Amino acid sequence: MGMLYFESDYMEGAHPEVMKALAETNMISTTGYGQDEYSQKAALEILEECGCPEGEVYFLTGGTQTNKVIIDSLLRSYEGVIAASSGHVSVHEAGAIEAGGHKVLELKGHEGKLSAEDIGRCLSDYTKDENRDHMVMPGMVYISQPTEYGTLYSLEELTSISTLCKEAGVYLYVDGARLAYALAAPENDVRLSDLARLSDVFYIGGTKCGLLFGEAVVFPKKGLIPHFFSICKQHGAVLAKGRLLGIQFGVLFKDGLYSRIGIPAIKNAARIKGCLLSCGFEMPFDSPTNQILFVAGNDFLQRISSKAAYSFMELWDDTHQLVRFATSWATSDEDTGALLELIRECLYAQAIAKTL
Amino acid sequence: MGMLYFESDYMEGAHPEVMKALAETNMISTTGYGQDEYSQKAALEILEECGCPEGEVYFLTGGTQTNKVIIDSLLRSYEGVIAASSGHVSVHEAGAIEAGGHKVLELKGHEGKLSAEDIGRCLSDYTKDENRDHMVMPGMVYISQPTEYGTLYSLEELTSISTLCKEAGVYLYVDGARLAYALAAPENDVRLSDLARLSDVFYIGGTKCGLLFGEAVVFPKKGLIPHFFSICKQHGAVLAKGRLLGIQFGVLFKDGLYSRIGIPAIKNAARIKGCLLSCGFEMPFDSPTNQILFVAGNDFLQRISSKAAYSFMELWDDTHQLVRFATSWATSDEDTGALLELIRECLYAQAIAKTL
Amino acid sequence: MGMLYFESDYMEGAHPEVMKALAETNMISTTGYGQDEYSQKAALEILEECGCPEGEVYFLTGGTQTNKVIIDSLLRSYEGVIAASSGHVSVHEAGAIEAGGHKVLELKGHEGKLSAEDIGRCLSDYTKDENRDHMVMPGMVYISQPTEYGTLYSLEELTSISTLCKEAGVYLYVDGARLAYALAAPENDVRLSDLARLSDVFYIGGTKCGLLFGEAVVFPKKGLIPHFFSICKQHGAVLAKGRLLGIQFGVLFKDGLYSRIGIPAIKNAARIKGCLLSCGFEMPFDSPTNQILFVAGNDFLQRISSKAAYSFMELWDDTHQLVRFATSWATSDEDTGALLELIRECLYAQAIAKTL
Amino acid sequence: MGMLYFESDYMEGAHPEVMKALAETNMISTTGYGQDEYSQKAALEILEECGCPEGEVYFLTGGTQTNKVIIDSLLRSYEGVIAASSGHVSVHEAGAIEAGGHKVLELKGHEGKLSAEDIGRCLSDYTKDENRDHMVMPGMVYISQPTEYGTLYSLEELTSISTLCKEAGVYLYVDGARLAYALAAPENDVRLSDLARLSDVFYIGGTKCGLLFGEAVVFPKKGLIPHFFSICKQHGAVLAKGRLLGIQFGVLFKDGLYSRIGIPAIKNAARIKGCLLSCGFEMPFDSPTNQILFVAGNDFLQRISSKAAYSFMELWDDTHQLVRFATSWATSDEDTGALLELIRECLYAQAIAKTL
Repeated sequence: MGMLYFESDYMEGAHPEVMKALAETNMISTTGYGQDEYSQKAALEILEECGCPEGEVYFLTGGTQTNKVIIDSLLRSYEGVIAASSGHVSVHEAGAIEAGGHKVLELKGHEGKLSAEDIGRCLSDYTKDENRDHMVMPGMVYISQPTEYGTLYSLEELTSISTLCKEAGVYLYVDGARLAYALAAPENDVRLSDLARLSDVFYIGGTKCGLLFGEAVVFPKKGLIPHFFSICKQHGAVLAKGRLLGIQFGVLFKDGLYSRIGIPAIKNAARIKGCLLSCGFEMPFDSPTNQILFVAGNDFLQRISSKAAYSFMELWDDTHQLVRFATSWATSDEDTGALLELIRECLYAQAIAKTL
Repeated sequence: MGMLYFESDYMEGAHPEVMKALAETNMISTTGYGQDEYSQKAALEILEECGCPEGEVYFLTGGTQTNKVIIDSLLRSYEGVIAASSGHVSVHEAGAIEAGGHKVLELKGHEGKLSAEDIGRCLSDYTKDENRDHMVMPGMVYISQPTEYGTLYSLEELTSISTLCKEAGVYLYVDGARLAYALAAPENDVRLSDLARLSDVFYIGGTKCGLLFGEAVVFPKKGLIPHFFSICKQHGAVLAKGRLLGIQFGVLFKDGLYSRIGIPAIKNAARIKGCLLSCGFEMPFDSPTNQILFVAGNDFLQRISSKAAYSFMELWDDTHQLVRFATSWATSDEDTGALLELIRECLYAQAIAKTL
Repeated sequence: MGMLYFESDYMEGAHPEVMKALAETNMISTTGYGQDEYSQKAALEILEECGCPEGEVYFLTGGTQTNKVIIDSLLRSYEGVIAASSGHVSVHEAGAIEAGGHKVLELKGHEGKLSAEDIGRCLSDYTKDENRDHMVMPGMVYISQPTEYGTLYSLEELTSISTLCKEAGVYLYVDGARLAYALAAPENDVRLSDLARLSDVFYIGGTKCGLLFGEAVVFPKKGLIPHFFSICKQHGAVLAKGRLLGIQFGVLFKDGLYSRIGIPAIKNAARIKGCLLSCGFEMPFDSPTNQILFVAGNDFLQRISSKAAYSFMELWDDTHQLVRFATSWATSDEDTGALLELIRECLYAQAIAKTL
Repeated sequence: MGMLYFESDYMEGAHPEVMKALAETNMISTTGYGQDEYSQKAALEILEECGCPEGEVYFLTGGTQTNKVIIDSLLRSYEGVIAASSGHVSVHEAGAIEAGGHKVLELKGHEGKLSAEDIGRCLSDYTKDENRDHMVMPGMVYISQPTEYGTLYSLEELTSISTLCKEAGVYLYVDGARLAYALAAPENDVRLSDLARLSDVFYIGGTKCGLLFGEAVVFPKKGLIPHFFSICKQHGAVLAKGRLLGIQFGVLFKDGLYSRIGIPAIKNAARIKGCLLSCGFEMPFDSPTNQILFVAGNDFLQRISSKAAYSFMELWDDTHQLVRFATSWATSDEDTGALLELIRECLYAQAIAKTL
């Protein structure tokens, strides 16, 4: 048996339907830079499904690029973005937000989530601080659904944050890199139309949710960022063959595929989670989506690493790491079964080794 | 007959062999971010073909992105990049280079090309200027092969510029967005190995030369830019499924496809050029590659625009524009024939209209 | 006799009245960062004199800093600033504007000045260009009064440019680093109130016009740039002891000193100009202010350089340079007389040397 | 009696000897931009006193400006600077470091100080993190002596940090905005020569230590930052009349004035500290320099605020604030006495009010 790839959710190409659409349209000529009909049509379908037909959609290539472009576009030079200290913009974008000139105002998260209470305190602390003119002004709240730890904001939590942001006049931006896995999770009660209603801008992840690459930025209200195309161009974020994004998202949003595509991931994630719990692994986060974070000893990791790929998250202590298995739309039941067996084998071998 | 697309060279998808490779590898799992075997292998093949096996290759998504990342990485904050005033970095990147903090030091081009003499004068003017510490220091020369106007640097010209740069200690960077069309042009005497020998860094264009998207940055000597991956990440220029670039370039560099792929474009461009000349159109540039620039009256353009797409270049005078037809690897002999016929028809109709 | 300093207009300290005010207030305690009464009072006096009591004044330290802060604050990321290619922001700020992310859209000047016609063409070329979304949008016109070559915009010229800017919706910004010398020139017909009426923002130069340092930024209408203090702070452009600027400008704007302070400079510049013309030096610009630019042979420059300091402007040809003498509020009639004598002496010695 | 200004250490002009030197040199002509003899001489004297005659000195105008220029110059785009979360670069520069493109990697401080242990962990966590290529690389450690809370690094602490930085290949930069008050504190055992020996670059504060304005950047080894002048110019940080900085620092470093100038500040700070402690105020930091931080009730603050200026630091709880008195070279024994009396009066009045 070959390597089992549970390292992340971008280990394969695209959903077969997406590949089919790309193949079928391959030799058709269209204009470039997203002005083609595929892109226009996909945008309309997305707006329809989000319940904001009067909005705007732009397609970008990847998550960090999208975060950087959106944050750069919306913030004034003296403003920063509030994010959980575990947020993608805080840790894993190699300083992309700061490279654009903005401070990430990091708040301690709760299982990767920001609480309305903490955001409120941050905003009011700034307002009350007599030195605030010497400080970075909060101009936006960044959250992701699901979070970096696979956890979910409930509709109630999201509504509280949204209300707070509207009152304070700061933007709310939702990073949906793995949004399909939220939508497929039984625990989730936040729909696309809720995101459109409660945020100023959000993006629907494609790269990790069935596409070769691509993220759809949704502005529920048109015109939030004038000259957005030029801003994207300036960031090197415009694809000459923009239609590739339109064609791909067209597939995802035809017949509701996007809301179904994450289901196998969730199902298999639940199996892995069950297995890890029953084997006694510590799981510090209650993740209902496609990422399963657990604490594993270096010994176990060494045993499993030649046969299954996992992802390093954080050093836990001298002998343990916080690691991740991730499932995706492409994860098969067979591979998941093989992984479960492998986990048990490694634990068994470890136990044997100790008794010797 | 439908629309004839001669607007640019990114109107279709990818070369059929490229699509085939993407389809075949689609469900195979690999690690992300370009650490996969396809990318490693393609890089080696490119280095081989460039005659610099000790070099480095990185894959990026598009041309503006590549220019921005390379220029940002190599220049110090107080340095600028010398370019022709018609250069892509000068006009058509929405200020991407300046957004990265660097001035484009524009020199007047000669059919889109920089002359060694002009570059030399620019460098020595800086050195002799007693106020130079208050000025932007030239740190790099940017040229493209072919240029924005489809013209070509000869090996002799390129060698002169390279020598000048080496003596002055400034980098030479060659933008090869349409490099395949240079390589396929009979007039061309600059090979990949010449670029590797004469420049500090160059890129081999994929987006306009047969790929869905992708540019291969070649550093003939390893280690020119430490932590280049992190720099790319910070620019939002890293593709999660990096293998997509490796797989595609793998096809282009297997069995020398890259050096052949431009041939139909050159052949058809020559036909169009011949037709336009014989019809009396002014062609200010002697372009031997896949772009044909010519001066056309607004009347003619209005007639042709509903049936053939061309590209606007510059306002020429009150009643004329400089416009462009471009061919590509995907241009068929049939479409080219139809275009030639259409040109003659429009001229004829115009002549008739005048006599009425 | 010691060295004669005619290199520039910042060779001495401050006007004696300014030094006196600084000495008298030295041990008085005030709040910092420009919130003190001296600064508030000076601001009001400036607004009064500019005829825009409803405006705003901010004090900054130097010219490049002021240009950088104003341009960064007003332009959106995708916008650039139109300037003469000889403008301070174009050549002599070491790329400060580009470091802030903005392209300087350089137009050829006419004796250092932009013409309304050229600006108009630039704006309309952008509007008509079908690729404009890939280009830098003009967002501001930058001019200086007087220019880098000491020339002056007439009220008529300034009015044309202002009208054009208002119609196009781009900002007009006037750099007044040497404004006192414009105000003192008999040829000038542009008053402070004209600048306030015709521009969106301008600055009144202090550093070159009698102060130790300092420039007063005037916004004729309040509120153009929200959170301007924080923006200045972010640029490292805020002086802890902000009152130093208020105290100094208070002197300049008490009893109309600013409109008189340039008079000796103009008078002595006229003497030098007369002498150079009578001696046959070429003077390519008709400068009516305190800068006298002339073409001098290397031989002459070598002779004079040990006794009088001049400023290098440009290489003219292989044996000549364009150089500058500048007078200031501090230039004495005696030193000017000595300079005139020295010029004649050097020419005489040169003539003798040739005859040998 | 007028207002008692204990808000900060930049409430007055300059030390009388500094003013005298500025007055005496006022009408002498020199070249600009710090190329004058005063600046050269002051630089030599500073290097002498720092025991690094082979080093370099540059003069800048203010603290934020200096931090921004140094950090921008030394870090590569993908690097960040480690600082205490209470550090000036972290909180009170309106995002100046991020505006330059760099993340401030904030560590929890200990009374405002970084511990070698925490720095070491941060560096090693980065090295061990398998995702480090997606993260900001620590490139510099920023500390200030004294800190924002008036506390001091001991020579032992500084040596540990320096050793760690050298081993890890990251720069150590010391912000000495209030360095004179460290040097004058009996508890201090870090001399200028220690800073020169242990750091890569540090600055000697002038603005808060007796000058009108000015900070002297000391590079113990020459050539650390090539083209530093152009970098400063690009930041708008160059003073045309650069000699003003040289003249002022010349006074501070003649006959060791800099090491004495803080003595009255320390003496009076000790008196205030003693009074506050004896009155029962909580003082969370053991500050041996010129800043006295204490927790005060809103009632007390309201009473005292009309007669004595203090500085807001942080909200403490619903009814208390952390505030600061600061002394300086200009603080008189009389004003200090008056402040002590005022403190007691306010407390007394408060007590009376409560009993009513």
